[in-house]
Amino acid sequence: MASSGMSLVRRAAEAVRRTPRWQKRLVVLTVGVGTLTYAVQDNRVLQICDGTGNKKKVVILGTGWAGASFLRNIDTSLYDVHVVSPRNYFTFTPLLPSVTCGTVEARSIVEPVRNIVRKRNGAFRFWEAECFKIDPTNKKIHCRSDVGTNINGNGEFSVDYDYLIVSVGARPNTFNTPGVTENCHFLKEVEDAQKIRKSVLKCFERASLPNLSEEERKKNLHFVVIGGGPTGVEFAAELHDFVNGDLAKLYPDVKKYVNISVIEAGGHILTMFDKRITKFAEEKFKREGIDLKTNFKVVKVSDKDITMTNSDTGEVSVPYGCNLKLEEFILQGSRRVLATDEWLRVQGCEDVYAIGDCATIAQRKVMEDVAAIFRVADKDNSGTLTVEKIKHVLGDIYERYPQMKLYLKSNQMKGFHDLLKNSEGKESKELNIEEFKKALAQVDSQVKMLPATAQVASQQGDYLARCFNRMQTCEQNPEGPIRIRGEGRHRFKPFRYRHLGQFAPLGGEQTAAQLPGDWVHVGHSTQWLWYSVYASKQFSWRTRMLVVSDWGKRFIFGRDSSSL
Amino acid sequence: MASSGMSLVRRAAEAVRRTPRWQKRLVVLTVGVGTLTYAVQDNRVLQICDGTGNKKKVVILGTGWAGASFLRNIDTSLYDVHVVSPRNYFTFTPLLPSVTCGTVEARSIVEPVRNIVRKRNGAFRFWEAECFKIDPTNKKIHCRSDVGTNINGNGEFSVDYDYLIVSVGARPNTFNTPGVTENCHFLKEVEDAQKIRKSVLKCFERASLPNLSEEERKKNLHFVVIGGGPTGVEFAAELHDFVNGDLAKLYPDVKKYVNISVIEAGGHILTMFDKRITKFAEEKFKREGIDLKTNFKVVKVSDKDITMTNSDTGEVSVPYGCNLKLEEFILQGSRRVLATDEWLRVQGCEDVYAIGDCATIAQRKVMEDVAAIFRVADKDNSGTLTVEKIKHVLGDIYERYPQMKLYLKSNQMKGFHDLLKNSEGKESKELNIEEFKKALAQVDSQVKMLPATAQVASQQGDYLARCFNRMQTCEQNPEGPIRIRGEGRHRFKPFRYRHLGQFAPLGGEQTAAQLPGDWVHVGHSTQWLWYSVYASKQFSWRTRMLVVSDWGKRFIFGRDSSSL
Repeated sequence: MASSGMSLVRRAAEAVRRTPRWQKRLVVLTVGVGTLTYAVQDNRVLQICDGTGNKKKVVILGTGWAGASFLRNIDTSLYDVHVVSPRNYFTFTPLLPSVTCGTVEARSIVEPVRNIVRKRNGAFRFWEAECFKIDPTNKKIHCRSDVGTNINGNGEFSVDYDYLIVSVGARPNTFNTPGVTENCHFLKEVEDAQKIRKSVLKCFERASLPNLSEEERKKNLHFVVIGGGPTGVEFAAELHDFVNGDLAKLYPDVKKYVNISVIEAGGHILTMFDKRITKFAEEKFKREGIDLKTNFKVVKVSDKDITMTNSDTGEVSVPYGCNLKLEEFILQGSRRVLATDEWLRVQGCEDVYAIGDCATIAQRKVMEDVAAIFRVADKDNSGTLTVEKIKHVLGDIYERYPQMKLYLKSNQMKGFHDLLKNSEGKESKELNIEEFKKALAQVDSQVKMLPATAQVASQQGDYLARCFNRMQTCEQNPEGPIRIRGEGRHRFKPFRYRHLGQFAPLGGEQTAAQLPGDWVHVGHSTQWLWYSVYASKQFSWRTRMLVVSDWGKRFIFGRDSSSL
Repeated sequence: MASSGMSLVRRAAEAVRRTPRWQKRLVVLTVGVGTLTYAVQDNRVLQICDGTGNKKKVVILGTGWAGASFLRNIDTSLYDVHVVSPRNYFTFTPLLPSVTCGTVEARSIVEPVRNIVRKRNGAFRFWEAECFKIDPTNKKIHCRSDVGTNINGNGEFSVDYDYLIVSVGARPNTFNTPGVTENCHFLKEVEDAQKIRKSVLKCFERASLPNLSEEERKKNLHFVVIGGGPTGVEFAAELHDFVNGDLAKLYPDVKKYVNISVIEAGGHILTMFDKRITKFAEEKFKREGIDLKTNFKVVKVSDKDITMTNSDTGEVSVPYGCNLKLEEFILQGSRRVLATDEWLRVQGCEDVYAIGDCATIAQRKVMEDVAAIFRVADKDNSGTLTVEKIKHVLGDIYERYPQMKLYLKSNQMKGFHDLLKNSEGKESKELNIEEFKKALAQVDSQVKMLPATAQVASQQGDYLARCFNRMQTCEQNPEGPIRIRGEGRHRFKPFRYRHLGQFAPLGGEQTAAQLPGDWVHVGHSTQWLWYSVYASKQFSWRTRMLVVSDWGKRFIFGRDSSSL
């Protein structure tokens, strides 16, 4: 009754599905055979958990940008790698605003961790759980499973580690504004984007009902975006495109009631971009009828309206239908963030590292070390320093204290010797410790906090994995700067962030881009650049194909309006 | 700064997006210009609601198979059409089992009602709300919006109608088994399918956690399917494919704990199919390790285990991880179903029609009308009937009482004259009323209830729309059978269901098919038939493309395992 013709086709598809990965991983595979054999054994979950292996055990918390890029780069032949995260997938967060309007589907921007595990030939383990306590003394973490605890009590378990990488991300900052948590949508997770999409369509359906007054229809179709940063602006632009490109045709009666507001506490939107971009975006938004409320601070959000203040108008309340909180500022700088040194090691905890939004690098101040710097540079212990004498450690100092170079640059100084000039502009030949301190007094003003972006997190993950991979090598041949306070050299160069530029999609197939070297451009061509960069940055060929085909689908059929 | 090269591309895409529809709808458009002009006016929501138009107002409740196929066929130049449904989309339900395992995405099988409205040039209105009361005396329905009622009190409104089409579907039948509603997943809506998908993956993640005993892992990976009908069998097969084709590679440790059970109260699965298909399916399932529990009746479901009885074993309790209720039986025949006549008119309500799962046709019994039939056939009032005399109304009688033909067929009778043979097999030349009654006594045993399937609902929607479109014509030239009890003829022929066959996908790219004319086949070729039929039956080119591309994606990349 059954023919077997199909099974051949199926086997061929199976082969296609596997081949590229095997080819790519061939080298890894030969290296990782030991791991692979080990992995086939029974009950290995508990075996590995006992930490009886010879390899050191690295536990990573979180599968965001930082965690995922660490995973991609860590050499699993050197470490037993374990991942604990409440989500079993990685999200390509820069496309979240696209998901809110259905330009891209939620599933197209997520990559299951299990796929990554499989591509690495099962070389690391994943557990879907949340870590609720770190015990650095006993090198143990305590986790809780969120996937239902009805069968096994509270679903708690503990995992020991040799090295712990914390990359759990951060919660959006509400600035303690009353009502924000209850009444606003956030845009951090892919579920948030799905909820926003559903909400927007529900607002349109509600506004189309026959029992509403004109006032009520307007209320329902007032979309308020809090925060004029890149995410807020991109979402407002996406929503405007969605409304005008798709929904206007599907809800022709209520189109005229739609109002999109962007509330920004500062004087302008997109302040982190070049002024030309800000100007272009503000003009474009005004032309399109997007209501820009700059210099407005949100003070309260109720289920019906949003209250804000402005120095001119005082407190104003606006009714809304759908409210979206898209502040860029995350919990950076607050006490809940883990402070690390420049090598991403959490201060005060041995063998614990923190990367991504949950971490902040506490850059060592020059003034804290100024006596030690003087001592290191003053090789002959003469009590005075000259430019000549300091030269042999200058490279190390620049590396250890990057604010020094920034300071020179921002003051148009050519080199260290400019710094040692006195107030009359005359170069001091010799400085004692007090004069040296005076000369460096302003340098630390250039210490900069890194933004909470995907770029930073991803680079930190890469950096840390590379450090781990060369741990042994660098132990013997340290490549970092000399230790100013201690002896010898640091094992690794400190983490240095390289800004690769930033995009701000403005809707209507126009995007603003600011690339290094002050390359600023806004327009349709930049939109294509955006398409190609975002397609190329996808985590896998699978998501790349999905995202590109979603763009194609939108192009042909428009966005879906099912309130699903 | 901005170039305009893109806008041309965009305009071209817009043109592509629109052209086919305009071409197709050109005729409709010219007919519907009055409607279109009307539609452009302000506040038309309330105007149409007042029913001031000259056209009769048809209100449809529900956007399932029945409602959607009515919508596709109704001539909007003849009626003002209004749709009220709690869902703003139509779901292609036969693909729901595919959504549960991610073979097809949820959005690929739904078509927004607004798209249908737009394709019909806005010729009808849609409101996302639920009807909670029908007032047939005042020809009014009372609706409640479920899209948030915080702004406008309770969100209730009423709509008046000239004709009402009820196609609200049915709730799954729990047979009052305790715990089923709380602890089982149903598979009626696309949201159900999404929840099942998430649950299945959560069960795998949970079973992979390090703190579980072997027993607990097994519990978590025991998937129980209640109901061995086509949906239950298809889901079990899909799940088996998902587990073995995709999850086994991603969760190699826990693969061995997976157990899929199908519980069926009857002696066999797929009882509505040919015995060969049942046998093939049962053997295939056994070979693959799917646990078939036939003759087991579920009596209780708790959050941990499921209790069932069997005449041999008595009561048994089995622990489970994920529990799925996929009974085919819907609320048919219970009091909550609307009874209609053969023209789909709800009994006792003027101008109210019911189609799809919410309705059941109360076929008029021959024995109820036997005296009237005798009178109509006995033209000369002689008090006796002969085969010759009855001939002139035989066609009408067969049409009015289809059970008559079924009875003849099931008793291998060639014609009406066979029915009139007496017990000795001799044809009676003349029958009086008592002999006539005796001859027809068993005929009504062949009255059959229609199954609650998409095919029935869809055909009913088509049929009713065609009746509405020819209302005026058929008023003057009735085409139905003669009225046995009254005068003249019925306006329309009664609804007659044409069974087009049925599929039962069995997994492993094999499908069972039973088409009319007893064409039975199981195998890979039938799977391809299934692919082509299901692709061709899609509601729009958009969903067709999406479904086919989903199949392609699965073929290349496998199914997604993100627990999203």
